Amino acid sequence: MNFDPAEHSHRRRNPLNGRWVLVSPHRARRPWQGRQEAQTEAALPAHDPHCYLCAGNLRVNGERNPAYTGTHVFTNDHAALMPEVPAPTAPPAAGEDPLFTLQPAAGTSRVICFSPDHARTLPELEAPALQAVVDTWCTQTEELGRQWRWVQVFENKGEVMGCSQPHPHGQVWACDFLPEEPATEDRQQREHHARTGRPLLLDVAAREAGGPREVLASEHWLVIVPFWATWPFETLLLPRFAVQRLPQLNAAQRADLAEVLRRLTTRYDNLFECSFPYSMGWHGAPFDGQDPAPWQLHAHFYPPLLRSATVRKFMVGFEMLAEAQRDLTPEQAAERLRALPDLHYRSRTA
Amino acid sequence: MNFDPAEHSHRRRNPLNGRWVLVSPHRARRPWQGRQEAQTEAALPAHDPHCYLCAGNLRVNGERNPAYTGTHVFTNDHAALMPEVPAPTAPPAAGEDPLFTLQPAAGTSRVICFSPDHARTLPELEAPALQAVVDTWCTQTEELGRQWRWVQVFENKGEVMGCSQPHPHGQVWACDFLPEEPATEDRQQREHHARTGRPLLLDVAAREAGGPREVLASEHWLVIVPFWATWPFETLLLPRFAVQRLPQLNAAQRADLAEVLRRLTTRYDNLFECSFPYSMGWHGAPFDGQDPAPWQLHAHFYPPLLRSATVRKFMVGFEMLAEAQRDLTPEQAAERLRALPDLHYRSRTA
Ligand SMILES: O=P(O)(O)O[C@H]1O[C@H](CO)[C@@H](O)[C@H](O)[C@H]1O
Ligand SMILES: O=P(O)(O)O[C@H]1O[C@H](CO)[C@@H](O)[C@H](O)[C@H]1O
Repeated sequence: MNFDPAEHSHRRRNPLNGRWVLVSPHRARRPWQGRQEAQTEAALPAHDPHCYLCAGNLRVNGERNPAYTGTHVFTNDHAALMPEVPAPTAPPAAGEDPLFTLQPAAGTSRVICFSPDHARTLPELEAPALQAVVDTWCTQTEELGRQWRWVQVFENKGEVMGCSQPHPHGQVWACDFLPEEPATEDRQQREHHARTGRPLLLDVAAREAGGPREVLASEHWLVIVPFWATWPFETLLLPRFAVQRLPQLNAAQRADLAEVLRRLTTRYDNLFECSFPYSMGWHGAPFDGQDPAPWQLHAHFYPPLLRSATVRKFMVGFEMLAEAQRDLTPEQAAERLRALPDLHYRSRTA
Repeated sequence: MNFDPAEHSHRRRNPLNGRWVLVSPHRARRPWQGRQEAQTEAALPAHDPHCYLCAGNLRVNGERNPAYTGTHVFTNDHAALMPEVPAPTAPPAAGEDPLFTLQPAAGTSRVICFSPDHARTLPELEAPALQAVVDTWCTQTEELGRQWRWVQVFENKGEVMGCSQPHPHGQVWACDFLPEEPATEDRQQREHHARTGRPLLLDVAAREAGGPREVLASEHWLVIVPFWATWPFETLLLPRFAVQRLPQLNAAQRADLAEVLRRLTTRYDNLFECSFPYSMGWHGAPFDGQDPAPWQLHAHFYPPLLRSATVRKFMVGFEMLAEAQRDLTPEQAAERLRALPDLHYRSRTA
């Protein structure tokens, strides 16, 4: 009997954060008896008078949204980060103690409405509207990067990902510290760059193009299910050229990115014929005065669904206490995503 | 304006895994408009003829459960780990490449039925039945520790934690590698021990007893909301004496542990008057031939609920891409858990 990664349990190491993932390919065969997520796919109106993100409507805090026509950005009414935090004078019990370490954390968080249309998620936007989202990500990163060390652009999509608002939107949180995940990616990318002279993810893109984990490719971009994917249909969106931060992208690279985003999110929706939930977000070089050369800009997509529109993967017990675990191989996931059409299932049936 | 950890956003560092957590105490005040979990609290029968964990019933694979009266342990019909995995002969494309690292992973996983009673979760078991659960955790760890490097005892409780079976049960997964989380705790505890000569968590227990993060205490055990808690009502169950692994516990320590478990899980149920979901599990020194002295046995409880029986915390977008985040302080969580009665709400209303 030979070792076969599509048959035998094994672990893979994520070089971007140094963490291992347990892969149990044989487990995809177990019958499912667990929780089923609700599937609520009611047709939404293009404008909902009760939505606090729609153009012209009142928000919770009493402010009125402008009659915006493209994207619309405003500061979160209940931000997790405050722009001003006093420095501890008498350090709390915590202080300098290695067992009880605490530091003030300042920042801001904003909401990005993708378009005035209440009913259209990213794959359903027209090309210019999708390009406006890409442009907004770039300008927000540039603007906030002038003041803050880390700028996190992200989108939580779907109720199952804690999204409290059906109106298509993302967020951008900026802060005066380098958070855990980017700090780890920073260390790993610097280590690879010091050893090889090349950005880690540019090496990955070169190796993965046209291979068994490629989902789709364009002139400037590549989407793969990474070799070390944790979530069942996790993907990594990579530039095929060296670039460290969103604002550096030129017009052609942005237009191509919008098209790649449309194709990727369309395939996601087509996989289980539902509005596919995920959290996605961008990582680029921090604004901390360090040499950005080891960094490569990239976006992670973390979607929870496993078997259907209603059966998700749970990262619980063993995963929380011991190690992340997945039930199908990244190669199997990539094969399924690769086989899907670039035409959205809703426009097919229309 | 002075820095106040109950008012101002800040970060705390978890010395057990070295990771930071963002604390946003002011955010607990935002109105909730997000997803509501279903609350299904139907009264269950003591025996369900269709349950594949009840005594005497047929399992999915056609085997029949014995007419067990205490706990019952069997090998998972769809284990994530296989006991035998062939060694890769020709290493897959992965091989020795730092970007594509893979290793075979062997192990086993078992299900632990807590009692034949389909309807009683841990806080509702009689003292001898709860002690039988503690004893089973100890004997399983001892037995599996003879063959495997790591033994992970855990319980996923509640549908929201991916528990696919209402019959009260836990699991034990054992494997031939040291998974991510315990490997990190191993490093951190060894580092603290090398520096101070004492186990990290024995120092923490000594410092936290009687303090603002204590939830409850007994002669041998202490439950705290750790200074660095990630989940809203996360707790850490610590021995007040040096001990490295479950099987070392003597009769008095086990009996006391069963009572502490009853009190903790009762308070959890009382918090929102529901069967409180969580993932919990034990960490002790690995079975790897290293000096176990830096280790201290402990259990983590990771419960997702935030505001009520139907409103949970989502670890999504910012948390997945940047850093874990919480909305109330660990001190506030401990205060609420401390104030709750040790008598279960269901027996109060009966
Ligand atoms: O209890 P089950 O059905 O084996 O599975 C549950 O616990 C496992 C261990 O934490 C997870 O890997 C699964 O995602 C979860 O659904
Ligand atoms: O979109 P909201 O309502 O601000 O909040 C959502 O995203 C945040 C950032 O990932 C999380 O901290 C919350 O737990 C989640 O519910």
